[in-house]
Amino acid sequence: MNVHFLGFGEAAYELAKGLKEEGVTSIRAYDVMIDHETFGQTIKERAEQTGVSLVKSIKELIKEVNVLFVAVPASKAVEVNEAVCAEIQNESFLYVDVSASSPAIKQQVQQNLEQKHIKFVDAAMLGPLPVYQHKVPIAASGTGTNEFIAKMSPLHMSIKAVGSKAGDASAIKLVRSIFMKGLVGLYLETLEAAEAYHISDEVISSLEETMNRQPFVDTLNRLVTGSAVHAERRAFELNSSIAMLQEAGINSDLSHASKERLVELAGIVKNHPEKESFANWKEVLELYSI
Amino acid sequence: MNVHFLGFGEAAYELAKGLKEEGVTSIRAYDVMIDHETFGQTIKERAEQTGVSLVKSIKELIKEVNVLFVAVPASKAVEVNEAVCAEIQNESFLYVDVSASSPAIKQQVQQNLEQKHIKFVDAAMLGPLPVYQHKVPIAASGTGTNEFIAKMSPLHMSIKAVGSKAGDASAIKLVRSIFMKGLVGLYLETLEAAEAYHISDEVISSLEETMNRQPFVDTLNRLVTGSAVHAERRAFELNSSIAMLQEAGINSDLSHASKERLVELAGIVKNHPEKESFANWKEVLELYSI
Repeated sequence: MNVHFLGFGEAAYELAKGLKEEGVTSIRAYDVMIDHETFGQTIKERAEQTGVSLVKSIKELIKEVNVLFVAVPASKAVEVNEAVCAEIQNESFLYVDVSASSPAIKQQVQQNLEQKHIKFVDAAMLGPLPVYQHKVPIAASGTGTNEFIAKMSPLHMSIKAVGSKAGDASAIKLVRSIFMKGLVGLYLETLEAAEAYHISDEVISSLEETMNRQPFVDTLNRLVTGSAVHAERRAFELNSSIAMLQEAGINSDLSHASKERLVELAGIVKNHPEKESFANWKEVLELYSI
Repeated sequence: MNVHFLGFGEAAYELAKGLKEEGVTSIRAYDVMIDHETFGQTIKERAEQTGVSLVKSIKELIKEVNVLFVAVPASKAVEVNEAVCAEIQNESFLYVDVSASSPAIKQQVQQNLEQKHIKFVDAAMLGPLPVYQHKVPIAASGTGTNEFIAKMSPLHMSIKAVGSKAGDASAIKLVRSIFMKGLVGLYLETLEAAEAYHISDEVISSLEETMNRQPFVDTLNRLVTGSAVHAERRAFELNSSIAMLQEAGINSDLSHASKERLVELAGIVKNHPEKESFANWKEVLELYSI
């Protein structure tokens, strides 16, 4: 099987390394940065290390390819797709876009490819590549999903079909990203304040006790349902934290945004006086759409 | 021992209930809302239920008191303190402010009280009162801390001296609050997006796997050090999530603030090219102050 990579950055390199170990012998790659002063060197070294043949054009890359991984930055996904479509004559291959693009972009890419009778996979990688390589958990949707799973599962890729259309898989990755990267922002705002007041040990040990007490979903349910009942008070309490951040000259944008979300939640709950308590997060979120 | 409450809202009520069970017989309370149309009724019911005597003025409340808990909204802490100071003749008691006020306000209150030779405790309650009642973990600082611990520990209150000055205890609570309430904001932004794309089950199960894998401090260290190395890329990736939230008409302020924090982190790390990796969150935060 010929597995080719359009874009040979870190993600493609890790996937290629893993697939090579599974015995895939014919791996080619094209990267627009191949002659770049600094990045070009890295690309060439990685290609050599993994036995990947570098080709000079998209035209060359899509010759005899069975599975084409497109691993470019999200901002380039459409542009690159249009460049591929322009080169397609009567080739037949799976177009697997692993970029972190928005659902709307993945849908547009699938539409472009349908006109060329090429099947599309919206593949969202849900873990760190350097840890998992080609075994990274992948959520997949789009017209080529079943074929993608059939072809790559024997090579120990871990692909799960999700949703019904292109973009559904990416939505999972991007929503997941809201939480994981938001959490980093939250850590930073919390730690910066804790360090400014020389109380990091006390704050972390207090948070540790609370956060380790229950598994993720239990904490999620407890905090969302509790906040729905006490949203107004909690929003008000957060004002004191924001005042403190301002006293210490620390950026409080994240706390401010959280406060606004609590204020909004208080308003939503107030519109539903029939709801006095909530069994789980879903009952709270349902109110948003009523 | 006479334990009195200035402000008899939920917090005071729960503390009083617990202390009553410990055998404290003389509990009095004053609340400015005592004759309020709706809240007054709740105050009276709670007082009756816990055998607390309601008094009509601050003057009356500070007669023969040993420990005065001031449990008013943060916005009222200074105003209430000035009202108490105005009534103090030659009384001697411990003034324990459990409000969620900022460190600067707690310091101001202690200064006011020093002029009246009254010892002050900045008491920060670090858990839910309805669960813990008077046994709630309390961080305490200020001139009256040791006396407070000596008096109340026999009644099974759980008080820990922290920091060296008034405000230190409150700083712990308020920094803790940045995280706990920020987390609620983050849950809401994440869940609202997940619900909009009908992928809540997939998103939650993916987050569950990641978040339950390690204890709190390990995840904190892993995400902060990893983000320090990849801040620029992660900030960029978050743009796709923000674009998706905007496509779905969902407020993206929190994700935006997180992105700005990652952009800032990228800039800070870039100023220290000698640091290529980080052993823990502290090494990352140290760069903020250099």
